[in-house]
Amino acid sequence: MLPRRIFPAEGEFLSYLCSNHANRNTMSVLNPSIPKGTRDFTPVEAIRRKYIFSVIENVFTRYGYLPIETPAMENLTTLLGKYGDEGDRLIFKILDSGNFLTGVTEEERLSLTPSKLAGRICEKGLRYDLTVPFARFVVRHRNKLSFPFKRYQIQPVWRADRPQKGRYREFYQCDVDVIGSRSLLNEAELLMIMEEVFRLLGIKVVIKLNHRKILAGIAEYMGVPDKLTGLTQALDKRNKIGDEKVLAELRERGFDEPAVRKMESFLSFSGSNNEKISFLSEKLGNTGQEQTGLDEMAKILTYAAETGVDKSCEFDFTLARGLDYYTGTIFEVVAAGWDGGSICGGGRYDDLTGIFGLPDVSGVGVSFGADRIYDVLAQTGKFPPLQDSSTQVLFLNFGEKELSYILPLVRKLRDHNVAAEVYPDQAKIKKQMQYANQKNIPFVILTGEEEMSQGVVSLKNMETGRQIRVTFEEVADSLIKK
Amino acid sequence: MLPRRIFPAEGEFLSYLCSNHANRNTMSVLNPSIPKGTRDFTPVEAIRRKYIFSVIENVFTRYGYLPIETPAMENLTTLLGKYGDEGDRLIFKILDSGNFLTGVTEEERLSLTPSKLAGRICEKGLRYDLTVPFARFVVRHRNKLSFPFKRYQIQPVWRADRPQKGRYREFYQCDVDVIGSRSLLNEAELLMIMEEVFRLLGIKVVIKLNHRKILAGIAEYMGVPDKLTGLTQALDKRNKIGDEKVLAELRERGFDEPAVRKMESFLSFSGSNNEKISFLSEKLGNTGQEQTGLDEMAKILTYAAETGVDKSCEFDFTLARGLDYYTGTIFEVVAAGWDGGSICGGGRYDDLTGIFGLPDVSGVGVSFGADRIYDVLAQTGKFPPLQDSSTQVLFLNFGEKELSYILPLVRKLRDHNVAAEVYPDQAKIKKQMQYANQKNIPFVILTGEEEMSQGVVSLKNMETGRQIRVTFEEVADSLIKK
Repeated sequence: MLPRRIFPAEGEFLSYLCSNHANRNTMSVLNPSIPKGTRDFTPVEAIRRKYIFSVIENVFTRYGYLPIETPAMENLTTLLGKYGDEGDRLIFKILDSGNFLTGVTEEERLSLTPSKLAGRICEKGLRYDLTVPFARFVVRHRNKLSFPFKRYQIQPVWRADRPQKGRYREFYQCDVDVIGSRSLLNEAELLMIMEEVFRLLGIKVVIKLNHRKILAGIAEYMGVPDKLTGLTQALDKRNKIGDEKVLAELRERGFDEPAVRKMESFLSFSGSNNEKISFLSEKLGNTGQEQTGLDEMAKILTYAAETGVDKSCEFDFTLARGLDYYTGTIFEVVAAGWDGGSICGGGRYDDLTGIFGLPDVSGVGVSFGADRIYDVLAQTGKFPPLQDSSTQVLFLNFGEKELSYILPLVRKLRDHNVAAEVYPDQAKIKKQMQYANQKNIPFVILTGEEEMSQGVVSLKNMETGRQIRVTFEEVADSLIKK
Repeated sequence: MLPRRIFPAEGEFLSYLCSNHANRNTMSVLNPSIPKGTRDFTPVEAIRRKYIFSVIENVFTRYGYLPIETPAMENLTTLLGKYGDEGDRLIFKILDSGNFLTGVTEEERLSLTPSKLAGRICEKGLRYDLTVPFARFVVRHRNKLSFPFKRYQIQPVWRADRPQKGRYREFYQCDVDVIGSRSLLNEAELLMIMEEVFRLLGIKVVIKLNHRKILAGIAEYMGVPDKLTGLTQALDKRNKIGDEKVLAELRERGFDEPAVRKMESFLSFSGSNNEKISFLSEKLGNTGQEQTGLDEMAKILTYAAETGVDKSCEFDFTLARGLDYYTGTIFEVVAAGWDGGSICGGGRYDDLTGIFGLPDVSGVGVSFGADRIYDVLAQTGKFPPLQDSSTQVLFLNFGEKELSYILPLVRKLRDHNVAAEVYPDQAKIKKQMQYANQKNIPFVILTGEEEMSQGVVSLKNMETGRQIRVTFEEVADSLIKK
């Protein structure tokens, strides 16, 4: 809570610095490194990230979604068991503060497995995604919320994954979900949100969608209703390995030849979204859950057509995604010409809050992967220009008298929302100009004896190199956005 | 990195839900609570927090400060030993992932103290403030940065403090620092920044400032140059306990009677900023560091006067603050009529980056306490109105035909930056209107058979209750901000 920076008692700190100084060539100069899989963001990177977040947030807001925030730390009871065994291993656990060994016997310290012992000395963990904390939030605050509750949440999550290119241990998710409504209009609005976010960012995308009940219908038609999980795991690799290898994997997984042939006929079909729906209706029949799935898909696509986003949408009945968890529509967005994985995805779930004691609440949502979106924009050069400088004008520093002369002008510009800087030190002009160049500042103001006696300043355009003498009013006129 | 939500394998998840369902009345329904000292932020709170951050960020940007971000986790070697023994205890440590006991012998598991054992099973911790990570950042990226480097950073920090009213285990700091310049113009600009932030937020404040060398001069004048720390610790309580008790505490701390009398003469002096400087110059003489301190203070106050912020500034030569750490000017902001502690503070430090191997770099900065600022605004009712709703208009849902009719209008409004919602379900009108009321949505649009046949909609002003029939163009005209 204290905004002040608390540092060690004076003597302690000074002796630390001194001992450090004496040993500068040995190990006591600290390595300024950071934990593997984490990142610093320099100003250019931070400004670009803010740009992505602001585009996304602005769209969420225009669709009536409201922000919430949850703590970085959750109780481990909230997190564990929600993401599978592998997920449990990837959760960062926080050592209890104080004497964390209280209540752990000597025997237990020796005999417990690491994961059991961790459960005794840690009761908190860092959130792994924003979905489980959201479910917990909805239950905790259910009496304060209006349902259907439309929320967005843009916060970091942490996973103890093996770091590799494009995979980090700390990364941001931008989640948008509506909970407490079964209407398919929600799905349609999510399509609009996805289409709009990527259109505004200038990323060409295909929004793939499918329905869990259609996938289940396909498994049934293949005669393997009990092998849905294996089927979807094989289909999930289709983009990477191709149709032939998917079929081979099905054989390996013990699917019989008639089943594999049926899948082959699905994979080889191509057509418009509506043609796909007709094709499947004919193949699968219309008695079971597959018909519900197809009807819902048709309706969502109708909504999409009515709002003009259908051109970006592709009904892909082989899209599998996080099937374990979703119960209705599933979404996944791929960027054209980008093979670094999907940049957005989600779906409908029918009982997210049940584990916290609020059953039968249906919701649907998607999550935008800000870090991958950053990579796509960086690779395609689609970040807007001038994002690496906020300062519009730098006042060079020629000394005290000149400072007194210009400070009122500096203040006036800032009051009118112009980002302005004064070079703080009376350094060589070359050094001050270099600073302006490095920060990409478009204008520089120079003020010498002559300018002061004439009541003007010299305004230099750093791009053209042109320099003119102008009054304060003229500076303000040219820099203040009307 | 994966935006998709990974959930347990289907069977696993379903059996989890089912077992949960069966035992709903026993312990297996999870408690939706959060770790003590942490908070959820509901939409109203989150929107208000965003407002505070955006005001602060906008000011930082107009003064040419650039954003950076650092990871939540730092290596413990970076964090430990920087905040004193008490600080070390308050750092949240993260259990190493995988088998954290590797390399810890059975004997060590039994014999090591908790803090020693923690050092063997944890190599990372959550950041405790933004200052040490900033120092590390500057050293790590020194070749990429332009100096003087002006950065701001708005991120949460974590402290395992005993939670109490107004003190949390996760809270945000908003830091603004310039590093690599000794110019006092930086101090003056920080005064302007503080004055402007609080003026824009509508909080009446006093910005107190002092100088470490003036305090040292006072201790010298009192004949106790070696007791500076004790002196400042006593002075630090002045606001809470009053002058008499400060003097009593000095006696308890072993200050002799002439020293206590001298302090009494300081405490009883009152006057303008300039009068204080004259008073001190006379008392302390002008030979040592105190004169440097007084000269610097005078200059900073001159800059402040030249930009009109001096009226908010009070030179308070008894202000002590984080003296252990600062080497020049110190700042502290108190809100009028608020006794919940300072809401902003900072100062100049001369060797922040030395411990990471980059010595002799001077910097100065302040940190805004967003959580306390929130409390001040909430208590004084100074949050701007309508901050709890972003949606401008709700379209009621009367069924499929009506939806098709209104969706193009919804899209048009959103394209013109009007936040618009469609109630997703075809629920009772009363329920839909209730939703609009709960979300404080100012306009509602109703569309029935009659409106459709006439090519209009009914627009209801939720405040006045007035309802009129208007064309799409008229809706757009009245809601789209020009």
